[in-house]
Amino acid sequence: MNIVEIINKKRVKEELTRNELEFAFNGYLNGNVCDYQMSSLLMAICINDMTDMEIFDLVDIFIKSGDVLDLSGIPGIKVDKHSTGGIGDKITLIIGPIVASCGVSVPKMSGRGLGYTGGTIDKLESIKGFRTSLDEDEFIKQVQDIGFAVTGQTSNLCPLDKVIYALRDVTGTVESIPLIASSIMSKKIAGGADKILIDIKCGVGATLQDLESALKLKDLMERIGDHYGKLTICEISDMNTPLGSNVGNSLEVIEAMDVLKGKKGSLTDLAIKISSEMVSASKEISFNEARREVLKVLENGLAYNKFLEFVKYQGGDINTLLVSEYKQEIKSNKDGIVKNINALNIGKLSCSLGAGRLNKEDSIDHTVGIILNKLVGDRVLVGDTLFTLYKKNNELVNLNLDDYYEIN
Amino acid sequence: MNIVEIINKKRVKEELTRNELEFAFNGYLNGNVCDYQMSSLLMAICINDMTDMEIFDLVDIFIKSGDVLDLSGIPGIKVDKHSTGGIGDKITLIIGPIVASCGVSVPKMSGRGLGYTGGTIDKLESIKGFRTSLDEDEFIKQVQDIGFAVTGQTSNLCPLDKVIYALRDVTGTVESIPLIASSIMSKKIAGGADKILIDIKCGVGATLQDLESALKLKDLMERIGDHYGKLTICEISDMNTPLGSNVGNSLEVIEAMDVLKGKKGSLTDLAIKISSEMVSASKEISFNEARREVLKVLENGLAYNKFLEFVKYQGGDINTLLVSEYKQEIKSNKDGIVKNINALNIGKLSCSLGAGRLNKEDSIDHTVGIILNKLVGDRVLVGDTLFTLYKKNNELVNLNLDDYYEIN
Repeated sequence: MNIVEIINKKRVKEELTRNELEFAFNGYLNGNVCDYQMSSLLMAICINDMTDMEIFDLVDIFIKSGDVLDLSGIPGIKVDKHSTGGIGDKITLIIGPIVASCGVSVPKMSGRGLGYTGGTIDKLESIKGFRTSLDEDEFIKQVQDIGFAVTGQTSNLCPLDKVIYALRDVTGTVESIPLIASSIMSKKIAGGADKILIDIKCGVGATLQDLESALKLKDLMERIGDHYGKLTICEISDMNTPLGSNVGNSLEVIEAMDVLKGKKGSLTDLAIKISSEMVSASKEISFNEARREVLKVLENGLAYNKFLEFVKYQGGDINTLLVSEYKQEIKSNKDGIVKNINALNIGKLSCSLGAGRLNKEDSIDHTVGIILNKLVGDRVLVGDTLFTLYKKNNELVNLNLDDYYEIN
Repeated sequence: MNIVEIINKKRVKEELTRNELEFAFNGYLNGNVCDYQMSSLLMAICINDMTDMEIFDLVDIFIKSGDVLDLSGIPGIKVDKHSTGGIGDKITLIIGPIVASCGVSVPKMSGRGLGYTGGTIDKLESIKGFRTSLDEDEFIKQVQDIGFAVTGQTSNLCPLDKVIYALRDVTGTVESIPLIASSIMSKKIAGGADKILIDIKCGVGATLQDLESALKLKDLMERIGDHYGKLTICEISDMNTPLGSNVGNSLEVIEAMDVLKGKKGSLTDLAIKISSEMVSASKEISFNEARREVLKVLENGLAYNKFLEFVKYQGGDINTLLVSEYKQEIKSNKDGIVKNINALNIGKLSCSLGAGRLNKEDSIDHTVGIILNKLVGDRVLVGDTLFTLYKKNNELVNLNLDDYYEIN
């Protein structure tokens, strides 16, 4: 077998065999295939697509490149949740406590943020003392004890996916439905849960901008889950507008707590929907039945208490959550209704304030970010505060309001 | 500007601007763009094609990456010839002396062989003393004096093409009409001739296997020539069967001399056709008029004498041409007519005997090769010699006759 022949085959849209995919991808991991050959193959895959058989094989190759987490020590059904990444997406911090309060285990591995979308691990590190690197035994024991744990990927899960993703990031080969699906699903399957909920973000603030691609990704990931006997449910949710009102690390933890304490709005609605899907799939009860359980643990404070228990269990002191004192209010220059808030630009702005990293090595400031004081649909008058920046220092930020808020 | 954005643009089939192409390609030459990024872009170009504007720009970027040869010291029209590469293709050694004998200058830069197709420089190095590295002044003086010279690329012509070609070779991105056309035409235009004749080989023994691709390449190269004010004529010629009867370095020089001395056959026919095109284009006379001149210099011995003059001028001693004494005759096992001789397999066989190189560093044996004793259309009987191997030593070569000759 020869890597150039394999690339040529994909270039002319022929199906690659399991052996050829192994030769190429395992060869890349062990250094026999060069990065310039892999990037060429990835581009051919991006443009010429993959067949289902190729995708199932690739997912398996990704999984077998590393360890598979054994969660059999945790009794009952384990459900995992993943978001394809959006601005202000703190859903994990809300649904974990809710679903665990309903008696379903949520063993959650999370990542750090890169680019304009945040990462759950970064958000949790706003809390002083919070340990985001649990070893496998600690992780399993915590889920056994309180039903919910979040850790960074400490085990050697899908190392092949890691190197392929890093290459895709710098070679214009990120936007491929089969590659996105293989990357997500291999990690979720290797993560060992029984059921998987994927929140597919779609809009200007997400990797996927159009509904057609989101629907294709949903369909493909559900079929991959099916192929591996892991029930996979995909929700498609809007990412044209930031999710909720807070963007930035400690600000998002605060908003998650607000929702658990009863705050209403579209963020709460989405969290309830996703939690209900997870409970319904795990307990094999109807969506409406699951939804009633979810609403109950929200109303009776069980979910909020579970959040506090979770933070404490992982060593965090919730009273240490800090928000920067350097504020700058951005005021409206006209009267009207907020028609849209540009998620991508809000994400970029938050990142530029120091809340996110553009390179893996960048350090972040957990205290900075943005609060959206006015949301889509709100009526505003000239002089009303639209949003508030929480900054590293008192330096004035100049910005063009129209890049962020559309008011008519 | 950002290389990932440029790659993404090509991935979704948008046209790249001149600035973007310069950023990517010049960036690759000066090390700002990585090889894994360039290979990804090349694959996107392979699959998504290029517009005429992009191709004209790319040719110009290739040309401007190095020097342009100034042939103004040579009076009259200068005509260049290029072959896309085939098995047994010694046409340059025949048409150079013919066209020069007709009074048209042929300044020819040639390359070494790589893979199964030979290179003119390798063939000429079969002749002891023959100097294949002329400096620019020597090269121009020789063309002024005798009308024909062959040299390896000593000047810094299209260095960008060189690095791009090396990358394409190992990344499955060779078979792209725009990239093939840009590579050939940029070197021909930088080579400084006024008119260009391209012999496009098409068939199992060539890069291009189908007539449709060959026609596309012909059309594109003629348009590029037109854009640069260099009349370009493309001939499409068959490469399913080796060209002529001899394959291998000294064997091919011998056959070229045989043709110049009067040997008939399809090789002679093609050489006459190409020479006539070159003379017709250069002298601006009709093809038939040019053909009469060509036949005349073949018949009166002027072309053969020009060949001897050319060899002597470059320091070669034609009496030193050696052919290996280790012969092996391959005989027919059936009666019938030769329907086909597989050019690719003959090329591979010749290469395995030592006549070609698979890697740039391989050394070659100028004395080995193959003579086809029976050609397509010949009647053969059991026991007739079909072809003869000229080998490095007496070791018996085992082969499957059906891979080479189709007899019915």
